[in-house]
Amino acid sequence: MEKADILIIGGSAAGITTAISARRYYPDAKILLIRKEKEVLIPCGIPYIFGTVGSPDKNLIPDSVLGKNNVELIIDKVVSINKERRTVETFNGRFFEYEKMVLATGSLPHVPPIPGVELDNVFAVWKDVEYLQKVLKALDKAKDLVIIGGGFIGLEFADECKKRGIANVTVIELLPHCLLLACDEEICVRVEKKLSERGIKVLVNRMVEAILGNKKVDYVELDNGQKIKADVLILGIGAIPNVQLALDSGLEVNEKEGIYVDEFMRTSNKNIFAAGDCTQKRCFFTGRPTFLRLASIGTMEARVVGANLFRLRHRSECPIGVFGTVIGDLAIGSAGMTEREAKEAGFEVVTGEAEAPDKHPASIPGTRNLAVKLVFERDTRVLLGGQVYGSMTAGKVANFIGALIQRRLRADEIVTFQVGTHPLLTASPISHQVENAAEVALTKM
Amino acid sequence: MEKADILIIGGSAAGITTAISARRYYPDAKILLIRKEKEVLIPCGIPYIFGTVGSPDKNLIPDSVLGKNNVELIIDKVVSINKERRTVETFNGRFFEYEKMVLATGSLPHVPPIPGVELDNVFAVWKDVEYLQKVLKALDKAKDLVIIGGGFIGLEFADECKKRGIANVTVIELLPHCLLLACDEEICVRVEKKLSERGIKVLVNRMVEAILGNKKVDYVELDNGQKIKADVLILGIGAIPNVQLALDSGLEVNEKEGIYVDEFMRTSNKNIFAAGDCTQKRCFFTGRPTFLRLASIGTMEARVVGANLFRLRHRSECPIGVFGTVIGDLAIGSAGMTEREAKEAGFEVVTGEAEAPDKHPASIPGTRNLAVKLVFERDTRVLLGGQVYGSMTAGKVANFIGALIQRRLRADEIVTFQVGTHPLLTASPISHQVENAAEVALTKM
Repeated sequence: MEKADILIIGGSAAGITTAISARRYYPDAKILLIRKEKEVLIPCGIPYIFGTVGSPDKNLIPDSVLGKNNVELIIDKVVSINKERRTVETFNGRFFEYEKMVLATGSLPHVPPIPGVELDNVFAVWKDVEYLQKVLKALDKAKDLVIIGGGFIGLEFADECKKRGIANVTVIELLPHCLLLACDEEICVRVEKKLSERGIKVLVNRMVEAILGNKKVDYVELDNGQKIKADVLILGIGAIPNVQLALDSGLEVNEKEGIYVDEFMRTSNKNIFAAGDCTQKRCFFTGRPTFLRLASIGTMEARVVGANLFRLRHRSECPIGVFGTVIGDLAIGSAGMTEREAKEAGFEVVTGEAEAPDKHPASIPGTRNLAVKLVFERDTRVLLGGQVYGSMTAGKVANFIGALIQRRLRADEIVTFQVGTHPLLTASPISHQVENAAEVALTKM
Repeated sequence: MEKADILIIGGSAAGITTAISARRYYPDAKILLIRKEKEVLIPCGIPYIFGTVGSPDKNLIPDSVLGKNNVELIIDKVVSINKERRTVETFNGRFFEYEKMVLATGSLPHVPPIPGVELDNVFAVWKDVEYLQKVLKALDKAKDLVIIGGGFIGLEFADECKKRGIANVTVIELLPHCLLLACDEEICVRVEKKLSERGIKVLVNRMVEAILGNKKVDYVELDNGQKIKADVLILGIGAIPNVQLALDSGLEVNEKEGIYVDEFMRTSNKNIFAAGDCTQKRCFFTGRPTFLRLASIGTMEARVVGANLFRLRHRSECPIGVFGTVIGDLAIGSAGMTEREAKEAGFEVVTGEAEAPDKHPASIPGTRNLAVKLVFERDTRVLLGGQVYGSMTAGKVANFIGALIQRRLRADEIVTFQVGTHPLLTASPISHQVENAAEVALTKM
């Protein structure tokens, strides 16, 4: 029986990052990674397969990163864990012994029990090359595409499928706006305007009651009785933690929230760690369970695991949630809580906004505006969230705001924060958005 | 005699930002801004006048920002201050009374006493529209341009003048590399390679001993005797604080370092504040005098002044220095200390590097690499500096690193820092540069 010092189950963002980090901390360890997929997709890149990138083969995490880090790769599926003997058994009947094990089993797309969901050409976003090739093929002949879910994945699919020339793209969203979990209403409205300019139809406050068709989908029926033609239907309504293996092996698991982990990312068994979409997470702001599932949170957790396996070094951080996306030529970033979310959580908030050309002078070719909205807690003046939209640097600016949130900076500290500026790379120092938005908020407190 | 609640002297980045901030904190104050320039140039945009932007008129700070904030503008030059009576007298013989005054008199280009510096077509970088129009005119006929100083301004002039088609552009730098005050050697070498690709000649370890010519410059003579043809010579070797008015009015001033200010940006007179290039500054890392002069530091100080005029609210931060620039298609950002600078200051340092495609998958059109180098103090693990180069987001990433430096984050904290990632906007979460560079450094400590 082969024995590994470190056995990682799962080969996506969290699994690979665990391997890379573990190698840095434990240069001599024998590291083994078992995954069931022959090839691993870049998870966040999946919608881009259908437009910009063109095929699943061009959206793969190269295995060379494992080889380079001297990580042995086994393509097989772990079917059971024996915690006492510290062994695992695979689908192909192989056994492996471990010193420390890491569960990085990820998440599965949520498939709601809508009547007709089993029809052909109804697709969830499975992270599987062959499956996505089938989606691609179905889309090749599609004229009418319907997407359930107006979150990031849903809108990215819509935008990319429009790029590939699908005539009618309709997004159906349960909430009053698209992206409402990550952005405040006024920003959602801008996104919806951009979608409409791109020829994408959005129906909000609507639920799909049934998927109709004979063998393959023909229509979806909404809660108001409206029927919409659909050659292809994509479900983009979130993911659920993949915890079956952890459950079966008797680890502490909350089926909805994920595998229990402590601050050091240890499961209820001291030799088993977990990282990524499969773990339970607590909100940075409220300490309550959060359903945030982001590759960037998974890799952060993986870096904690990689360091801690044989000696505790790092504590995991509760997720604040930092997002970015692009719709047409409009980039959007969001970090922490929206104004709406903060109010719903019970905070008294003050907001500040600032918008400016993102190069200076604005006469520089390619100059576009970038707007920032910051959300502060009134009493403590602490930053709770920020949203950014406009030019393509929105994602990086969201990360800057994310840094300020994580360090719990106050509005008065942000006002005097130092940033660098440059004509071709940023707004002018006079109108630089983050400090100005903070000053606007501060003088309202 | 007209009386202002707040009288600001100087109308560039610090003066205007003071006015905007003061208006936010003191909505009813009468604010008056006196400046000598009819039109105000965007200071960092000056090199871009000569290529990308095309003329000084397209590189102006619009006066509308003053009008919008109900700030009265007087174009005149203050020639004396009476601190006891709280009045100023102008060149045109006008008198103004003030409650609080702000000196934002900026800096002047350093003009070294090289023989021949008075010849025609030898230009320093004066922030003056008419002067720069003269430079533009001289460059129109130039075939041989020599620039003294391989810092940001010098290289930006070189790159922009190459864009406008000047045949021979030569940069002369005293130190062993260009940009050596902001970047470590290996990054300077990349910049020099890019300059060379762009047809710009760089001579390092060289001083100009004399400027030769009859009425107008014809040659510069270097310390090794070499003569270089020059139709136009530009001096890009730094700025000195403009403190004459402060000196004349008996305020505490260090002529080399600037006007003395306390933490609240008050001068030695309690009714007079100062902000921007004209003030004395202390290094964030060592507490020693620093000659950093950046518009973004000036606006930070101005926001402190604007808030504090009638009630102390904010403390000014010691500058860390955050820079960005672009040479050809290579963007460079730098925050805090370089490795070299940190060692010279007496720190024992550990560095970490990480490079990755700045979109993911790398098959997305327009993907380019972005590399990050971080410099940590070995004992405390605290981040001292970071450099970024490659794709056009380098400036924003330098700001992110700047945030981590200002909050004195340790390598082990940065490893578990949360960032957002997105295929079109950032590197992959697995290879995201800042956390990976921190992890590389950490595992070397």
